[in-house]
This record gives sequence, C-alpha cells and structure tokens, in this order.
Amino acid sequence: MKLIDQPRAPNPRRVNIFLAEKGITIPTEELNIPGKEHLTPEIKALNPVQTLPILVLDDGTAISESVAICRYFEELQPEPPLMGTTPLEKATVEMWQRRMEFNLMNNVAAVFRHSHPAMAELEVPQVADWAEANRPRVQRALEMLDAQLATNQYVAGDSYSIADITALVGVDFTKMGRIEVPDTLANLARWRAEVSNRPSAKAGMSK
Amino acid sequence: MKLIDQPRAPNPRRVNIFLAEKGITIPTEELNIPGKEHLTPEIKALNPVQTLPILVLDDGTAISESVAICRYFEELQPEPPLMGTTPLEKATVEMWQRRMEFNLMNNVAAVFRHSHPAMAELEVPQVADWAEANRPRVQRALEMLDAQLATNQYVAGDSYSIADITALVGVDFTKMGRIEVPDTLANLARWRAEVSNRPSAKAGMSK
Repeated sequence: MKLIDQPRAPNPRRVNIFLAEKGITIPTEELNIPGKEHLTPEIKALNPVQTLPILVLDDGTAISESVAICRYFEELQPEPPLMGTTPLEKATVEMWQRRMEFNLMNNVAAVFRHSHPAMAELEVPQVADWAEANRPRVQRALEMLDAQLATNQYVAGDSYSIADITALVGVDFTKMGRIEVPDTLANLARWRAEVSNRPSAKAGMSK
Repeated sequence: MKLIDQPRAPNPRRVNIFLAEKGITIPTEELNIPGKEHLTPEIKALNPVQTLPILVLDDGTAISESVAICRYFEELQPEPPLMGTTPLEKATVEMWQRRMEFNLMNNVAAVFRHSHPAMAELEVPQVADWAEANRPRVQRALEMLDAQLATNQYVAGDSYSIADITALVGVDFTKMGRIEVPDTLANLARWRAEVSNRPSAKAGMSK
C-alpha cells in the first residue's frame, strides 16, 4: 500500500492529518503539483480526474478522493472514530464535513485558483470575477464556523472528527488565497489554536 | 420525522430517489425555491446555509446536506446497501459518488446557476465566464462516466449505488443548463435508460 501524495496541498494534508489521528503510517510517494508531475498518463490511469492524493493498494487498486480514502481507513480501523459512531453522529459529522468542504475549503480554493499568479497554468481559464464572488462566501463560512464553535468544542459537536480536519485545512488555506480571517471570530480562534496544537496538524506539512 | 423538500430540484431529488430505493416513505413539506420560501429565519435556524432538503427528526434535530441525510438512512436501514458493504466497496462508492458530484453535477449546476435568467435573483453575482468555463468540464465528466460504464454495469461497479443516483441527477440536470449529452456516449446511454427505468427515478419529480 502507498499514498501518492503532495505535501502542503490541502487535500493531501487532509488525508495525512486523518492518518496521523488514527496512528496509521503508510509509505508515500511525493509528486510535485506545480511541476505537473500529476499530469501524466500513469496518474490518469489511476485517477481519471488526476487529483491527489491517491491510495494504491498492494493489488494495484487505486482509491482517490480524500474523503473516500479516509472512509477506507475508518472502516478498516474504526478507532479512534473520526466519522461518528451512531447513525445520528455519522450523519452529523458528514453534514459538517460537507459544510466545511463546500462553503469554506472549496470557496477558498476558488479564490486561490482563480486569482493567484502561480495557478495561471494549472487553472485554465482563470476567472477573476469568480475569485471575487467567492471572497464574501468565505467570510460567511468563517462566521458560520465561529457560530457553531460558540456552543460546541469541535466542529461536529463534542468529539474531534474529520469535520475539524476539513475546517482546519480550509482556514489555514486562506493564507494562500490572501484572505483575512477576522480577529473578531473568537470561538474560531479558540478552536483553531486547540486543533493546531494536536500533533496531527503537522502531518503532511513537514516532510 | 419529516423531509423539507423541493420537488424537481437536483439535491432533493437525490434524497427522494435514495429513499425510494430503500423503500422508505416519510412525510414531506414542500417549499418553493424560486419563490424563496427557503430563505426564511425558520429555515436558517435549521440549516445555516439554507439549502434543501432538510431532514427534521421528531425531537427537532435537523440534518441537511443530501449525502449526510442518505448516510443517516443507510445506517438506520442498511438493506439494500446503497453505499457499499466492505471497506473497499464503501470507499469505491464514495469515490465515484464524489467524482459524479464534483465533476458532473456541481459543474452542470455552475453552468445553470451562472447562465440561466431564472437564477438571476438567486445567484448573485451571476458570473457568465464561470458558466462558460464549466461547459467543457461537464463534457469531460460525461466522457469519464461513459468510459467507466464501458466495463461496469453501474457507476461504482456491479451494484446500483448512491453514485448512480448522483450521476443520473447530474445527467438529467444538463437539460436545465441547456447542455447537450453527446449521442456518441453509448455506454452512458445504455446505463441512463436502465437506471431511468427503475421506479425510484420518478421519486421527487411527480408529486
């Protein structure tokens, strides 16, 4: 088994944090995204949409999509649970994971991909108006996260979960999009400090 | 328990098909999205992002995000399985569900929301260049789906799953985005006819 990985990119970071929280270590093969090492026929054969990371099993089976990779490990090794345990917990974690993914992380990515000069060759066409349209959406997502954390220790409730992982990666990704996280969001700041101090937060960043 | 629903809209349709495949019937309350009946403080209290559908449990707990609602019912009533059974199946179904959601359904939605005059009041700002940027992405997603169906009966392999539901809703949604599905995609056409003939395909459309 190996993980085809890209340190520092947000999706690979999600999977690396997830694995660190599970205490699972697997071999990684690092590709350079700005160097377009993921845009090869070999990668396309493993994943037609050519996103990273990709988990390759010993028999050659490839699993892509970060949350699908996390699901695989959650099912193989349920402890500690990062996707909920009861039906209601599982649905609640999935709901918050998706809210953080679609409203925060993906909107930050839209700002970054459609405004940053470094993405001009990878994001064709860059649509500047689309980057701008996403800036207020990111602010609303940060406010939603702050409101949720006013009455919950973690994003999906009392337990750390994959929703915290996506939210942290999304919040940290604001730097790349040159987006300010308002100081006034005190609940978000409390939570961010706490989850950033977990050893897992460094996974996939310092390799 | 009730489902706050909107017949014909793609996300509510996903949940309605899923429930029909499970043989589950629950009361629904229908809101009119063009009439902005979902943009009320009551709906915001149930779901801060104000998307439909929303599942409201008897104790008032609200679950939104279509796939999270599906997850809840999959866990409550595993048969027939629509999200896989083994760890590898669960990961594979989730991977294909997400590929169909992010590359097909969401890109069709981007074309529709950013180009259709009917969305001018709900999608602010409409970014015409973003609609156009998504048209070739939809074509690539349709080609990916066709290639997958060349060697698989269903989107995620041998069994009908939530990946077929998202794919069917995405393909059917092309009409609203005035996007042509090429006749040359014969595997897609074979599969589309087959899954459209299941009684579940009419769920959430004929109420």
